[in-house]
Amino acid sequence: MYVDEDNITDLAARRWATAHSPRQAELMTAMIRHLHAFAREVQLTEDEWMAAIQWLTEAGRISDDKRQELILTSDVLGLSMLVVQLNNRFSAQATPATVLGPFHIDGSPAAPYGFDMSDGIPGTPLFVTGKVVDVDGKPVPAAVLDAWQADADGAYEAQIPEIDEARLRAKYQAREDGTYCIRTIAPRGYAIPMDGPVGELIGATDISYFRPAHVHFLIDEPGYRKLITHLFQEGSEYLDSDVVFGTKDALIVRFTEKPAGTAPDGSHIEQPYLHAEYDFVLQPG
Amino acid sequence: MYVDEDNITDLAARRWATAHSPRQAELMTAMIRHLHAFAREVQLTEDEWMAAIQWLTEAGRISDDKRQELILTSDVLGLSMLVVQLNNRFSAQATPATVLGPFHIDGSPAAPYGFDMSDGIPGTPLFVTGKVVDVDGKPVPAAVLDAWQADADGAYEAQIPEIDEARLRAKYQAREDGTYCIRTIAPRGYAIPMDGPVGELIGATDISYFRPAHVHFLIDEPGYRKLITHLFQEGSEYLDSDVVFGTKDALIVRFTEKPAGTAPDGSHIEQPYLHAEYDFVLQPG
Repeated sequence: MYVDEDNITDLAARRWATAHSPRQAELMTAMIRHLHAFAREVQLTEDEWMAAIQWLTEAGRISDDKRQELILTSDVLGLSMLVVQLNNRFSAQATPATVLGPFHIDGSPAAPYGFDMSDGIPGTPLFVTGKVVDVDGKPVPAAVLDAWQADADGAYEAQIPEIDEARLRAKYQAREDGTYCIRTIAPRGYAIPMDGPVGELIGATDISYFRPAHVHFLIDEPGYRKLITHLFQEGSEYLDSDVVFGTKDALIVRFTEKPAGTAPDGSHIEQPYLHAEYDFVLQPG
Repeated sequence: MYVDEDNITDLAARRWATAHSPRQAELMTAMIRHLHAFAREVQLTEDEWMAAIQWLTEAGRISDDKRQELILTSDVLGLSMLVVQLNNRFSAQATPATVLGPFHIDGSPAAPYGFDMSDGIPGTPLFVTGKVVDVDGKPVPAAVLDAWQADADGAYEAQIPEIDEARLRAKYQAREDGTYCIRTIAPRGYAIPMDGPVGELIGATDISYFRPAHVHFLIDEPGYRKLITHLFQEGSEYLDSDVVFGTKDALIVRFTEKPAGTAPDGSHIEQPYLHAEYDFVLQPG
């Protein structure tokens, strides 16, 4: 029996159901059914199909070590955030997860309490302090907070060629009572890369292509679910329109303005600074 | 209101509904709904999501002038053939359409009745003769049949570097009574490229990765729907398992063995040859 408009989906699904891994068979057949349902629903034309092929090809070709246009695609379609939700169903007390983003770098240097990861990079000093606790409020002693962020121009280290040392990223170790102290500079909101296929698509819509100011955190302690999240600055622009859908109420934190004098880690600071206080609550698992 | 597992799909669809082109808005919102429905149905894990991103990236990166891995992806998932069906709903008398494939080259040379497009390339001589007619059987005078095929190794011109002249492709002009005569060599079934991401996927299934022997045709006459199709050799291997789902009953043609002597165009031929007879029936439109 050969193909026709009605049987093609079943034929294709049946064929890919022969994948040797049962999970792969499940993924492929479901993907075929949804992809075909999309094409049928919109009565996809041959020109549109070809445009989509060329778009995806270009997204792959523009991607490299410093740029991942297909992650960006998934981000702006809300798919990344959906996958985060599906895989991180924490209890209401726990700190919620949000997108990892494409800019995390493995192997950041260990940093003690109060370490300044901005190290002379211009910006308003920011201290982030608080505790790492479990859902019952018990400290997680010596938890490691892997932190990273963009500079005041919205650039991550991964986007800057020829950087030798860690830049605006560090693995902060909390103390035995779970308290931590990060010194950095205030992050700023920034535009996603708009010079590629994703920018071309977004440019033909009314979608805001900015992300609100945030610092990234990854906390992966034995006995707890891995937490990948951000802290967002209360009142910053784009909170309501984050182009990657990453904002959550529970992740918005006040950055309080403080005068020069004594910093949160007890050191002396000669200029005004911002102070954000936040307790990360880990989900057991 | 910020994102959660339940509202993310609506939020994303609503945002992309601001596309300035109504059709683009329709395509994007439908695509988001189907993509999210897929992720929810299979409860896509973060590792699977990342593997899919990397797979797509590699498919884009391996594509170039000579190779289009994303068309191949669409082909092996049955999507290409579905799109062909959706866009070419011809009447039952008309010759059905099948996939274009990635190897068509524009601007093939004009060829008269009986021209040999194989021009010394080794293989069994094949004559394809018949008429180009409309659904009422009336000839389409001087119709142009753009024909192309793989050589006996399964290689298309587009896959061979440094070819200066048209190779196994030509635009045959039918005579005023609609009759045409193509001289070539018998095509052979061949494997799709298995050294890339598509091959990696198919290699982990029981799917046959071959196409049955075929010659491609494109006929685009004023007053008729454009016809993109193949003729398949009756009895050839892989008819029942064409990896791109392109086979159709009405496109399978007997290649009759003939002794040396007089060829279908009246010329003398010194070796045995194959003869396929087929009338292309065009859909008005």
